[in-house]
Amino acid sequence: MNVNGKKYTSIWIEKDNRVFIIDQRWLPHEFKIVELTTINDFAVSIRDMWVRGAPLIGVTAAFGFAKSMQYDSSDKSLEETKSILLSTRPTAVNLHWAVKIMYELLIKADQDNRAEIALGKAKDILKRDIQSNNQIGKNGYEIIKNIINKKNNDKINILTHCNAGWLATVDWGTATSPIYYAKEKGANIHVFVDETRPRNQGAQLTTWELSHNDISHDLIVDNAGGHLMQHNEIDLVLVGSDRTSSNGDVCNKIGTYLKALSAYDNDIPFYVALPSSTIDWNIKDGVKNIPIEERDPSEVNYVQGRDTSNNIIKVDIAPERTKSRNPAFDVTPSRLVSGLITEHGIFDANYASLQNLKKLSYGNI
Amino acid sequence: MNVNGKKYTSIWIEKDNRVFIIDQRWLPHEFKIVELTTINDFAVSIRDMWVRGAPLIGVTAAFGFAKSMQYDSSDKSLEETKSILLSTRPTAVNLHWAVKIMYELLIKADQDNRAEIALGKAKDILKRDIQSNNQIGKNGYEIIKNIINKKNNDKINILTHCNAGWLATVDWGTATSPIYYAKEKGANIHVFVDETRPRNQGAQLTTWELSHNDISHDLIVDNAGGHLMQHNEIDLVLVGSDRTSSNGDVCNKIGTYLKALSAYDNDIPFYVALPSSTIDWNIKDGVKNIPIEERDPSEVNYVQGRDTSNNIIKVDIAPERTKSRNPAFDVTPSRLVSGLITEHGIFDANYASLQNLKKLSYGNI
Repeated sequence: MNVNGKKYTSIWIEKDNRVFIIDQRWLPHEFKIVELTTINDFAVSIRDMWVRGAPLIGVTAAFGFAKSMQYDSSDKSLEETKSILLSTRPTAVNLHWAVKIMYELLIKADQDNRAEIALGKAKDILKRDIQSNNQIGKNGYEIIKNIINKKNNDKINILTHCNAGWLATVDWGTATSPIYYAKEKGANIHVFVDETRPRNQGAQLTTWELSHNDISHDLIVDNAGGHLMQHNEIDLVLVGSDRTSSNGDVCNKIGTYLKALSAYDNDIPFYVALPSSTIDWNIKDGVKNIPIEERDPSEVNYVQGRDTSNNIIKVDIAPERTKSRNPAFDVTPSRLVSGLITEHGIFDANYASLQNLKKLSYGNI
Repeated sequence: MNVNGKKYTSIWIEKDNRVFIIDQRWLPHEFKIVELTTINDFAVSIRDMWVRGAPLIGVTAAFGFAKSMQYDSSDKSLEETKSILLSTRPTAVNLHWAVKIMYELLIKADQDNRAEIALGKAKDILKRDIQSNNQIGKNGYEIIKNIINKKNNDKINILTHCNAGWLATVDWGTATSPIYYAKEKGANIHVFVDETRPRNQGAQLTTWELSHNDISHDLIVDNAGGHLMQHNEIDLVLVGSDRTSSNGDVCNKIGTYLKALSAYDNDIPFYVALPSSTIDWNIKDGVKNIPIEERDPSEVNYVQGRDTSNNIIKVDIAPERTKSRNPAFDVTPSRLVSGLITEHGIFDANYASLQNLKKLSYGNI
């Protein structure tokens, strides 16, 4: 999508197969581009959230294999690459998915061919991510059109949580893809953006994306969505997913569950946009069985922003003696989910429906 | 309650009837005491939230009348005092309640006696606030005892939102009063404190209160409560109320409704602690009819905290082009409320039950 009027993706390859990313830690205040070279660069960029978002983490991990194999394609290096990348973020299923694909392909391959095979596969995963997200946009647009048709005026108000935007994928995003696609088709869209504490991905990334792509929006605190829903200010909730169970439970950024409860209580459609690679077919009960990453409590006690001298700094908001808890995700039970928007179409959030999706998506990559 | 081991109230009178408050804007990082002298001091201290919390706003307004009458007890001054104070905060019913009591008492009185009458009444309101909150603590303790008795171990985990603490009242607090009282009785209590964006009253005030009174607690982001409730980490939700309708709908700090939904979904008791003065007997449907204050959007875009040089500053978290919406309260429908803890006992959140409370509380002050 656009940044200052120029097209970008969140990760890309230049001449001599050099890999570049947008270092998202400094947005919205600074737009920094970084080259990733060593496997350590890739691991740090995932662990410390220079890149984040389930699909982008997967693509970045795939390129991590490609660069790692370029330097050393031995079995030992392959095993190390796998283990280093897997240790970076525990919750995102796309990381495991991409690591599994890359590892299983490469362990079978001759050592001499691994670098080339890895690079080809990483490029393929990147391309398919863009295609898949674009298709999610087209499929989700049908929901937006239906809601607009039902209303007397042609404006639709959408609430989104966290950043399931193009910055969380290679391009288009998941939850934002129907928004960008509908905007291209001329729909009159307004987006309410949850700031998404503790890391403020909504306030720092989604607002930045939307403002650079001329989408009307208001930033709100995470507490405000329920009130807006009670007063008919929201027509649709659209979020992403970091991991989806085979019965349609959705593990997404902490706080998503609260918005789903509120949407349900106010009879507002709550849709989740996700590539089918985000589904963990081995887990049936998401609330019970998806492990939830507890991140560093300092993310709760400190807030990053820009001071009056334009420096990006962190401020401490709590007393020194106060400890924090920082669960990073929660699971929204499928009973609260109106539907799952995937690259293969829209599916009900239940086991039977997702078995149909499984047939379509399995073995795709 | 205690600050650095010394007893304080949030507003108090010293010799020569000088009125002092804790200027809460700098907590938890700086503990500042301010004297309020002119009616303008009182209005600014309420409007700009040097003092906040429904009960404390009422008491502060009462002393505003007292100081104002001391300088000028004319009818004109009385009318101006009323109008200046009423314009400070639109939602808190206690402000209207205190202004009405003071005005109706003073307009009937001889001009020469107004200063003395006003001061006496303000002192009386202050004293009754402390008594009322202490009684709320005793009544709420019964709920805490019952939950502890039902559990196998003796520890209770309580979630609270915003600051309905002693800083929001004169002493004890409303939602915190049962906690402080239970702690005195030796209960093993742990409190999860919602940070409560946008103004972070939880992170800045409730945590500060609890740490100075040796109550075990963890700060969490507003998004986290639902997840903790799903995983049996919360036994009880205790919040305050800025305004309660006659059918038991509860208007409290924005985000309270989301926690009520989550408590209901996970079968966790959700109690609201409030002095009966917080009930607006004229409003039946709180969701439809309680006006919600929309505060300055800059509260959303900027976060206050302490930088590494110990300066208290604000940082900008969003892109420059991004606008915000800032509704300050929401209304939790009575169907989600397990009960109302008042100074007269615990009442069901419905019209019939509250009519019984009305009989007890009416004409009390």
